[in-house]
Amino acid sequence: MDTAARYRLLVTKLREFARLEEALKLLEWDQATHMPPGAQHDRAEQMSVVTGMLHSLRTNPSFLDLLDELAARIKELDPPAAVDVRETKWRADRLRRVPAELQAARARTQALARAAWLEAREQNNFETLRPHLYEVVRLEQEYAHRLTDDGNPYQALLEDYEPGIPLTVIDQLFQELRKPLIQLAQSLKELSRRRRKHQSVLRGHFPTNAQRSFCRFVAERLGFDFHHGRIDESAHPFSISIGRDHRVTTRYEQTDLRVGLYSTLHELGHALYEQGLDPEAHGLPRGTACSLGVHESQSRLWENFIGRSEGFWRFLLPHAGRLLPSLKGAPLEAVLVDVNEAAPSPIRTEADELTYNLHILLRYDLERKLISQELRVEELPEAWRVGMEQLLGITPASDREGVLQDIHWPSGAFGYFPTYTLGNVFAAQIMEAAERQIGPLSPQIERGSFRALREWLTTQIHRRGQEERSIELIRQVTGEKPSSRALLDHLHHRFRWWVDHGGF
Amino acid sequence: MDTAARYRLLVTKLREFARLEEALKLLEWDQATHMPPGAQHDRAEQMSVVTGMLHSLRTNPSFLDLLDELAARIKELDPPAAVDVRETKWRADRLRRVPAELQAARARTQALARAAWLEAREQNNFETLRPHLYEVVRLEQEYAHRLTDDGNPYQALLEDYEPGIPLTVIDQLFQELRKPLIQLAQSLKELSRRRRKHQSVLRGHFPTNAQRSFCRFVAERLGFDFHHGRIDESAHPFSISIGRDHRVTTRYEQTDLRVGLYSTLHELGHALYEQGLDPEAHGLPRGTACSLGVHESQSRLWENFIGRSEGFWRFLLPHAGRLLPSLKGAPLEAVLVDVNEAAPSPIRTEADELTYNLHILLRYDLERKLISQELRVEELPEAWRVGMEQLLGITPASDREGVLQDIHWPSGAFGYFPTYTLGNVFAAQIMEAAERQIGPLSPQIERGSFRALREWLTTQIHRRGQEERSIELIRQVTGEKPSSRALLDHLHHRFRWWVDHGGF
Repeated sequence: MDTAARYRLLVTKLREFARLEEALKLLEWDQATHMPPGAQHDRAEQMSVVTGMLHSLRTNPSFLDLLDELAARIKELDPPAAVDVRETKWRADRLRRVPAELQAARARTQALARAAWLEAREQNNFETLRPHLYEVVRLEQEYAHRLTDDGNPYQALLEDYEPGIPLTVIDQLFQELRKPLIQLAQSLKELSRRRRKHQSVLRGHFPTNAQRSFCRFVAERLGFDFHHGRIDESAHPFSISIGRDHRVTTRYEQTDLRVGLYSTLHELGHALYEQGLDPEAHGLPRGTACSLGVHESQSRLWENFIGRSEGFWRFLLPHAGRLLPSLKGAPLEAVLVDVNEAAPSPIRTEADELTYNLHILLRYDLERKLISQELRVEELPEAWRVGMEQLLGITPASDREGVLQDIHWPSGAFGYFPTYTLGNVFAAQIMEAAERQIGPLSPQIERGSFRALREWLTTQIHRRGQEERSIELIRQVTGEKPSSRALLDHLHHRFRWWVDHGGF
Repeated sequence: MDTAARYRLLVTKLREFARLEEALKLLEWDQATHMPPGAQHDRAEQMSVVTGMLHSLRTNPSFLDLLDELAARIKELDPPAAVDVRETKWRADRLRRVPAELQAARARTQALARAAWLEAREQNNFETLRPHLYEVVRLEQEYAHRLTDDGNPYQALLEDYEPGIPLTVIDQLFQELRKPLIQLAQSLKELSRRRRKHQSVLRGHFPTNAQRSFCRFVAERLGFDFHHGRIDESAHPFSISIGRDHRVTTRYEQTDLRVGLYSTLHELGHALYEQGLDPEAHGLPRGTACSLGVHESQSRLWENFIGRSEGFWRFLLPHAGRLLPSLKGAPLEAVLVDVNEAAPSPIRTEADELTYNLHILLRYDLERKLISQELRVEELPEAWRVGMEQLLGITPASDREGVLQDIHWPSGAFGYFPTYTLGNVFAAQIMEAAERQIGPLSPQIERGSFRALREWLTTQIHRRGQEERSIELIRQVTGEKPSSRALLDHLHHRFRWWVDHGGF
């Protein structure tokens, strides 16, 4: 078989794997949205079996031989094909270090831990989760040690989400951010003592059905394609692509419009990335998102940089008044103060964009220690409380508002949290680049036109798939290496605006 | 490896296959209930890949060797294990005649044909479906010829749904039914000329949300377990079990309560069968329903024998009046006339239980000819019209009300339709046996107590899985071989009641 024929065979195989993985994703989506509660055990078994099969396929000796042969002849391939071989080989080399049984055990344990987490959160009882989380951590340690011979196990986990990023880059970004963010959080806390009474307009009563229509309207205007997607509800919002079938979930609170709107905007950002991938490259690395950090940059960009901007609300407010009658006539400035409200608070997903990264810092500190065994699972609730006090100056009222708030650890996602802050960092850099290249975006956004930005993002980032690793992609798009400068500039700017305009 | 160890390995394998099949079922359920329209192509690919994998697993040489070794030593196994080996071997022997590529092509072609069918029905245009249906029929002919060397290809297809039933049994039952049913349909037509004006109480306006609550109430009272199940909506109602996760779909019409209620009752009957299977035997033949005919007997039993009975409505009517205010104070007799309304009509799923079997006779005649190539796909619409005239004395107004009404043929389900009438035949025999053994059921049902009947069905039928083939199971449960006598008695009785009580 010549190299071209071998590559075509690789494509066929990868697309077959992708279809099976899509079945797995539907099992996940359904578990979070529609599955009856008594089916948890069966679902865990289903996911474990499909995950095990995927692992077998991806580590099948004849597939690995094919891949090794292609990798040895990579110079004979054109650049897009070379990307597919390079990235597939990199992942395969990691995978072949991990036995199928360990993969199946991880999937099964994590599915059960997710169920336990739902219950623990409901009961506000860490003990319900503890034994499950203990097993999850133990399996992730084993998994990490399989991936790396003598390197840092945490680095190995991180690269499941952010291939090729050195832990030193993450450490440096967090180092740059830590002090300024703690200072900003302290200022917020001091300011809050002398805060003026602000009449919130986005708190109140917003019926869920009206919020659904409102968020659907926003999604349509942003360019989300409902012919190839849908919006549902789940306890923890997420977005998932089952082929060219992009599904977003959100969570509405009747008493606060911001929860549903900004969850939706965030997840739409992810979905727009997936919609922008090259459909001709389905199932291949060059038709797959670059990394979680880049993914998060897209969600943060729409959620924070666009969704909390003055231009966006100049466009949206009249429509909001139409779909949510209690917002009729609401003053723009009051809305902007509401959506940029910043204060240390216990819940990450509801945190403002300023304190958000401190929540990530906490998790980053704790999960590195969990993996390196400097911290035990049973010490987690207390370590959480201490960390919250140090970073944000507050103590959560309960574990439900503390260590039980996130699904990530029960899902075995260690090394995932840092990609959130990476996303914020990248988003700030990308927005600066976009305005440099397209020109000021605010006037277009005020008119409800998001096309220029969306198409620029598609060309610059989405369509390129895994052509480059994230650090290089960001360098090419923005002209600089990952740096917290743009994010800190943005946050100081927003914070100042907010203090000046009635936040206090 | 000794025989016991081999059997344990078989169990492990079968359960693995079952989990993958459950993933496939979720893909199907989602396709009919929630999938965005643009995802049809992707879904067809997903289902094709998973179906192909299932086929590979089930025809894997080492699995077949294991099975052959167990089959050779079947006398060493205890009776339940022997059932698992016998039934698995029977299916495997059929499967190994069919190449994986043909299975994958069937799955892909059928998924696309189902999408085309939705469109064709929407447009009332058979031409949209024709080329897809042509491909489906061609593949089913090929499939049937693979299954049987010199036997009847249609018999081979039939046994996918009703293992072990001789075509002569079906032929004889239809022979017994044909003339009396055509006569009954003619009587109905003549009577309809002098029909009194009947004031229908179940036609009117019933808001969908209220119908949802009503059907949920009915499901709960019948004993459907919402902890392990749910009810959704789809164009063509169905029930499907994704492990111990039993999902029913129904279809509401705001202008006619009967559509939603009887679709729900029908599908609940299927779901109660699945709920009654032995959970300890998950994934094994003895934990799997016996046949489609027996399955249909359960749906028909709840839909027709219970759901249209006087006792049932004595229980239900007060609750109906509470949940659907327009039914408050409705006279019982008027409701009973409505739910037993009988008249030749073009749509099978809306047909009364009397003319229903004539719809099946038509399909049976046509699909046998399609498979034996006595009839071509393009001749189908005209043959349908002629057959409807001969059997039911009516001509459908359009193909939407004719040949386009069912999803079965686009789904490749040839040999499936006869199991509906088999279900009616079995249901009548089973109901007679139930009343002989439990005593009269009407008094319990009037009190809204369905437990005695449900538990009897569970013990007699559900828990026994595939212990026996359907003919033998029916003989053991009812003491007689399959016979249309009980069904004809029941239909004559209902018909006479209905004529006497204001149907005309």
